[in-house]
Amino acid sequence: MDAVTLRRFFHRHAEVGFTEFRTAGKTVELLQSFGYQVSYGKDAIDESSRRGLPDDGQLEEAYQRALRDGADPDIAQRMRGGFTGVVAVLKGKQEGPTVAFRFDMDALPIQESSDSDHVPHTNGFRSIYDGSMHACAHDAHTAIGLDFAKRMASRSFSGTLKLIFQPAEEGGRGAYAMAQKGVVDDVDKLICFHLGLGVPVGTVYGGSTGWLNVTKYLAHFHGYAAHSGLSPEQGRHALLGAASALLHIHAIPRFGKSDTRVNVGKLEGGSSSNIVPGYAKMLLETRATVEEVNAELERRVRNIIKTSAEMYELDYEIEITGGAKSIRCDEELVSVALQAASNVEAIRAAEPIFTASAGEDACFLTERVQNLGGLATYMIIGSDIPYPHHNEKFDIDEAALPIAVELLENIAALTLNPS
Amino acid sequence: MDAVTLRRFFHRHAEVGFTEFRTAGKTVELLQSFGYQVSYGKDAIDESSRRGLPDDGQLEEAYQRALRDGADPDIAQRMRGGFTGVVAVLKGKQEGPTVAFRFDMDALPIQESSDSDHVPHTNGFRSIYDGSMHACAHDAHTAIGLDFAKRMASRSFSGTLKLIFQPAEEGGRGAYAMAQKGVVDDVDKLICFHLGLGVPVGTVYGGSTGWLNVTKYLAHFHGYAAHSGLSPEQGRHALLGAASALLHIHAIPRFGKSDTRVNVGKLEGGSSSNIVPGYAKMLLETRATVEEVNAELERRVRNIIKTSAEMYELDYEIEITGGAKSIRCDEELVSVALQAASNVEAIRAAEPIFTASAGEDACFLTERVQNLGGLATYMIIGSDIPYPHHNEKFDIDEAALPIAVELLENIAALTLNPS
Amino acid sequence: MDAVTLRRFFHRHAEVGFTEFRTAGKTVELLQSFGYQVSYGKDAIDESSRRGLPDDGQLEEAYQRALRDGADPDIAQRMRGGFTGVVAVLKGKQEGPTVAFRFDMDALPIQESSDSDHVPHTNGFRSIYDGSMHACAHDAHTAIGLDFAKRMASRSFSGTLKLIFQPAEEGGRGAYAMAQKGVVDDVDKLICFHLGLGVPVGTVYGGSTGWLNVTKYLAHFHGYAAHSGLSPEQGRHALLGAASALLHIHAIPRFGKSDTRVNVGKLEGGSSSNIVPGYAKMLLETRATVEEVNAELERRVRNIIKTSAEMYELDYEIEITGGAKSIRCDEELVSVALQAASNVEAIRAAEPIFTASAGEDACFLTERVQNLGGLATYMIIGSDIPYPHHNEKFDIDEAALPIAVELLENIAALTLNPS
Amino acid sequence: MDAVTLRRFFHRHAEVGFTEFRTAGKTVELLQSFGYQVSYGKDAIDESSRRGLPDDGQLEEAYQRALRDGADPDIAQRMRGGFTGVVAVLKGKQEGPTVAFRFDMDALPIQESSDSDHVPHTNGFRSIYDGSMHACAHDAHTAIGLDFAKRMASRSFSGTLKLIFQPAEEGGRGAYAMAQKGVVDDVDKLICFHLGLGVPVGTVYGGSTGWLNVTKYLAHFHGYAAHSGLSPEQGRHALLGAASALLHIHAIPRFGKSDTRVNVGKLEGGSSSNIVPGYAKMLLETRATVEEVNAELERRVRNIIKTSAEMYELDYEIEITGGAKSIRCDEELVSVALQAASNVEAIRAAEPIFTASAGEDACFLTERVQNLGGLATYMIIGSDIPYPHHNEKFDIDEAALPIAVELLENIAALTLNPS
Repeated sequence: MDAVTLRRFFHRHAEVGFTEFRTAGKTVELLQSFGYQVSYGKDAIDESSRRGLPDDGQLEEAYQRALRDGADPDIAQRMRGGFTGVVAVLKGKQEGPTVAFRFDMDALPIQESSDSDHVPHTNGFRSIYDGSMHACAHDAHTAIGLDFAKRMASRSFSGTLKLIFQPAEEGGRGAYAMAQKGVVDDVDKLICFHLGLGVPVGTVYGGSTGWLNVTKYLAHFHGYAAHSGLSPEQGRHALLGAASALLHIHAIPRFGKSDTRVNVGKLEGGSSSNIVPGYAKMLLETRATVEEVNAELERRVRNIIKTSAEMYELDYEIEITGGAKSIRCDEELVSVALQAASNVEAIRAAEPIFTASAGEDACFLTERVQNLGGLATYMIIGSDIPYPHHNEKFDIDEAALPIAVELLENIAALTLNPS
Repeated sequence: MDAVTLRRFFHRHAEVGFTEFRTAGKTVELLQSFGYQVSYGKDAIDESSRRGLPDDGQLEEAYQRALRDGADPDIAQRMRGGFTGVVAVLKGKQEGPTVAFRFDMDALPIQESSDSDHVPHTNGFRSIYDGSMHACAHDAHTAIGLDFAKRMASRSFSGTLKLIFQPAEEGGRGAYAMAQKGVVDDVDKLICFHLGLGVPVGTVYGGSTGWLNVTKYLAHFHGYAAHSGLSPEQGRHALLGAASALLHIHAIPRFGKSDTRVNVGKLEGGSSSNIVPGYAKMLLETRATVEEVNAELERRVRNIIKTSAEMYELDYEIEITGGAKSIRCDEELVSVALQAASNVEAIRAAEPIFTASAGEDACFLTERVQNLGGLATYMIIGSDIPYPHHNEKFDIDEAALPIAVELLENIAALTLNPS
Repeated sequence: MDAVTLRRFFHRHAEVGFTEFRTAGKTVELLQSFGYQVSYGKDAIDESSRRGLPDDGQLEEAYQRALRDGADPDIAQRMRGGFTGVVAVLKGKQEGPTVAFRFDMDALPIQESSDSDHVPHTNGFRSIYDGSMHACAHDAHTAIGLDFAKRMASRSFSGTLKLIFQPAEEGGRGAYAMAQKGVVDDVDKLICFHLGLGVPVGTVYGGSTGWLNVTKYLAHFHGYAAHSGLSPEQGRHALLGAASALLHIHAIPRFGKSDTRVNVGKLEGGSSSNIVPGYAKMLLETRATVEEVNAELERRVRNIIKTSAEMYELDYEIEITGGAKSIRCDEELVSVALQAASNVEAIRAAEPIFTASAGEDACFLTERVQNLGGLATYMIIGSDIPYPHHNEKFDIDEAALPIAVELLENIAALTLNPS
Repeated sequence: MDAVTLRRFFHRHAEVGFTEFRTAGKTVELLQSFGYQVSYGKDAIDESSRRGLPDDGQLEEAYQRALRDGADPDIAQRMRGGFTGVVAVLKGKQEGPTVAFRFDMDALPIQESSDSDHVPHTNGFRSIYDGSMHACAHDAHTAIGLDFAKRMASRSFSGTLKLIFQPAEEGGRGAYAMAQKGVVDDVDKLICFHLGLGVPVGTVYGGSTGWLNVTKYLAHFHGYAAHSGLSPEQGRHALLGAASALLHIHAIPRFGKSDTRVNVGKLEGGSSSNIVPGYAKMLLETRATVEEVNAELERRVRNIIKTSAEMYELDYEIEITGGAKSIRCDEELVSVALQAASNVEAIRAAEPIFTASAGEDACFLTERVQNLGGLATYMIIGSDIPYPHHNEKFDIDEAALPIAVELLENIAALTLNPS
């Protein structure tokens, strides 16, 4: 299967963070068939470092669904309960550095469009899983990783090639748990990348900056249910408190010295029109280019949730379910990437540093590599997109896939001292 | 089975409006065993008049659950898809008036408490259905109806006894659909009642007034999803619009000439912390003692939803899913009720008219009877309650059950010209 | 001057609470000319019991304005600083009871309409004081009191007639300060009244009930000013906190067991578009038919202000600036009023008890009289109004004035044992 | 008088935009005494281009105040009504270019601190005008301009020196009206500057970028007043609508491609706690680094105000009262500034370009000069500040004043071809 075929397979089987049983299972199967030594399940991810895990029911339901859809039962069994990370290793003929490439695999909780201008729908690879969708190109990332893996399997090189397939990038959760397992502790050079982000096909950035510090929150509001007609005053309205928090979090001021973001992305509460809602919960996030400012945003979010809860005499809890930090790209690796790009015919423009305004949990991998003396970079590979990232009509230009594979091959050639 | 045993059975099998397959099925079985002529399914409810119906998936899931829990498959089959009304008729020996009694059967979408002071939990009859609970005594209403039915089966009387077991009182939905089917068109006298409402055991009101005009709404907000980090400005935030509507609906002013209520009882929207929410929906209601004022509340609610949606450039729809009107009790029937009460030893206080501040969809039945020349009343039968109606710890004092049954028997004796 | 002429004079010189220097001065002049013994200034009002006093600048400005407009300087001097209460006493020929009548004199801080259908404007007696207006008929009350005083001056009666002209009824401030001075401590019967309230000309109520418990609040929010472009995050936005409080106070739920009201009537904060507002203040009130419920409203208002302030890290203070309680009318006096009304030809309907939904600080006078063993009532005297009370186009039907005067005369005749 | 003495004089006489009668009057007097040819009043400012003018009452009151405080009556008379711009011209001995320097003169509507650590208070030059304060260093700018003018008067140079003293920089109002009058139409080089902005004493930037596009708005909300107890539903609550607009304007999302700002800086509405507020108004602003984004912010602000008004059935109007655009500094002039700075001993660091995040209406002058073929720059001159700009305790380090004067002299020397 080529990268495009694989990408469409993964697009159809869109699985959200920590439930990538079909995706990661397929990945293990293929990598094993290419001759890689593959670690996965509890060997690839630290159990207690997994933040923002879905609840047991959701994990089990997705697991059973993957089995029904043809996942290898032995492989899936070892991932059961949310252990969907995969690490593949291929040794070269001679000694040499360990060079790692990272790919993220998870989808988003979005109902994919079935509009007539949405290519995945009209071409028959729309997500078959209601409410889940690849709207951030991770399907393509995984496909690129596997096509790249296949090609490298027949190459001769020195050193060690390591491929990291990561779950749960959305929400800033999976990379941290794999880093904590130590999967990059032997890595000398780590290459990460993302497709899209407004960069057109044929343009590549060898590195990036401006990645936002991100914190993800889950807040619970506990009120008291009452009959809305007989005695509304006996209730404590959880949704009024939550709606207050939602509005005021969005009204947190801009900062003079840092770009910032706030978003309440989900809110659920109450049960019936004639009951004062006794419970509500919300998912939200903050982002900032400056780490201290994100810490200040967290302080303000906590205060707004606290005071909104107290305003309606609610109890509340706040959980941190994920996050990310900024990423620093080493100049040496950026240069390698640009040199590699210059040998890809379809790449018409190669630039050094892209300024992103998103969060990326690859930060936990790059930081660990750098702390241990290694190098890291995070590239942007252009791919035209008709709709914004995270939209129900998001799609990519698949012409980006072979370009990306060739670029990774060239980087491997430059870093794994070719014999 | 006596009334208390039945009430606990129904309490355990708490089913929300239009999904009362186990409850109504059991009711049909018992009424048939007592010798009543029983109509149900599409014979007892008008299909297209059912407002606020759960979606097909929920109806089917509840149906399958009822089958698993022992519902008679033949009976349940005829109720499949939300036809859970039941009408039982017993003819007396001589000609005479048709006297009807009405009982509602549905539960509420509340997670029942498992606190150690919650009697249904400690005594083993807590709801076995996650998220559903009898928190408004309809379990007791149905049990009273069946115990009363059993006792009347062995009585001699003139005229016709008609027992109406109604689904979906909560949300103001079921009575309307049964009235539209014509189930009370031959009724000369209609007796309805409710337990609790702050009235202690041993006190009974022969009639009631002050029932609120109620309208139930379902509002949809359609925005546009976008990546909350890269380009939040490309999103149209459905939850900000919905939260605005929620707050401002609760800020609708009090009225000088009518008591009013507003409640947003449920809100759901968005999917993930890093996506600008593209969709949200809310359930809400308005109530007023004066009908024109409730119409004015509806006008204001519609305007607030419209302008809140427009503020965030959202599309929206508003559906009316139910409602109720005020109830007028005929003095003659109130007198009958008081006379009947005077012969029940456990009733220590019998009062004419209770002022309620709740909504009741029995209004559609009483109005229809009265429009056709009949009489109606709505009684309140006392039962101490430790927590407010619609609270997760709501419970009743079961001592009210035999009192209620005896009261209904006495009313039947007075109205069905005893031979 | 007859009542209508006087009313128009007072309407032109509309003065808000505690600044009625021209109004009260004119009242003193006339009462003295009629032969009454008149107390005023610090003799009629308890200095430290005056709540919600305007600031010194406002008091002085209004004082100077009254002097410029012809107030008697000697009389005004004794009222300077907000001592605008007046008590007039007339002894009858024989001993007898002390019967008091109470009239309020203050205007409201409203800019009066100059529309072509606003009678006071087209007839040349629109308020000459920018921003102040008689929009609650107190101009008429005072005029009725003075016309009544003139007529009584030539009558023969037993006992003592006492006329109380009170400042600052709006905001619930003046009656309390006069009651604390003891002005009704010798009163056996106290008659109060209001024009309008939706009652048409020719209808009179001998008493009233349903007067709301009222509390008036002034809240201050202290934030921190900052440049809104350079460093908005360094500011603490007082208006965001105040706006939050405003919205959430209006969202306080209705109560099942009491009619309630909430209103934020004034908000001021900030200074310039490019400064994060460092200060804001708001005036608000709560009302409830049940005294305990008003106490609960106060508890909730305080909590909402506190939590809204804390949400934006503001300091805050809350002052109580006034209030009122419910009024109890003695049946004996209501009967007297109805008997008196029956002798007024222009009164076509005399009813016992009107249900008001407003607040009235006469409560402090009626309660004091009743606590000391006397009787009190509060009548409603009909007067058609084209626009609601407190609206900029409020006006009365002056036909009510002679009716009111005649009614008061008849009540005096019945209570001051005519010789 | 030296710069420090002058600065303290202006600090004491803090006058807000278009009311700088004392400040501009003093400026005219001094410039005339130095021998400059001075234009002012309607000769220096275009009447109909003055946006955001205070109302007539405020203009007149400030005018009278200036007269009382010693303003020259003849000079002030020509500025009466808000014509407070001043242009001074000094011709050199030979022909040469026209070089202009611009100084802004207005204060802010802030109540100045009287805390014991606020130097202007403890040193006796706190603003004597209640509610006005120099919290953005324009007092110093004017003082620097006058000291510089005095020194230049005794110099020999070629060309023409033009000094522009501008009113109403705050709110983005005065520069536009002077540019429209044509005061810079003959200017070849225009030098503008600001003190402070976080830059320490001894550091100077020769140019700046990042100036925000700014729009200033005044919004009116017209509701309907009613009695808050009797019939709140008859009112249309202007403050609820305004508070909604305020909150939702602050919740406008961040933009991915432009730094933005929003601020509601002032809100006033209502009159009394017992009246549903019939009117409210607010001052606000938007800012963005990208001009199109500021246009989009304006679109959103207008929509939020519209929908908030409609939500509460209010009429509304929106006025644009001022604004600013970004500023482009010409490299040639930046170089001149840096060269000039290198000759000032107290300047320890001279940098080319400062990134500001504020708005500056000098943009209208620089743009006009550049459009006509001239050059412009906007420098930042360091001055330590203990509190942020626009705070009630803002102050500057006066050591910056002689530095600034010397820097301007050096720039003049380099640009006015010294003989």
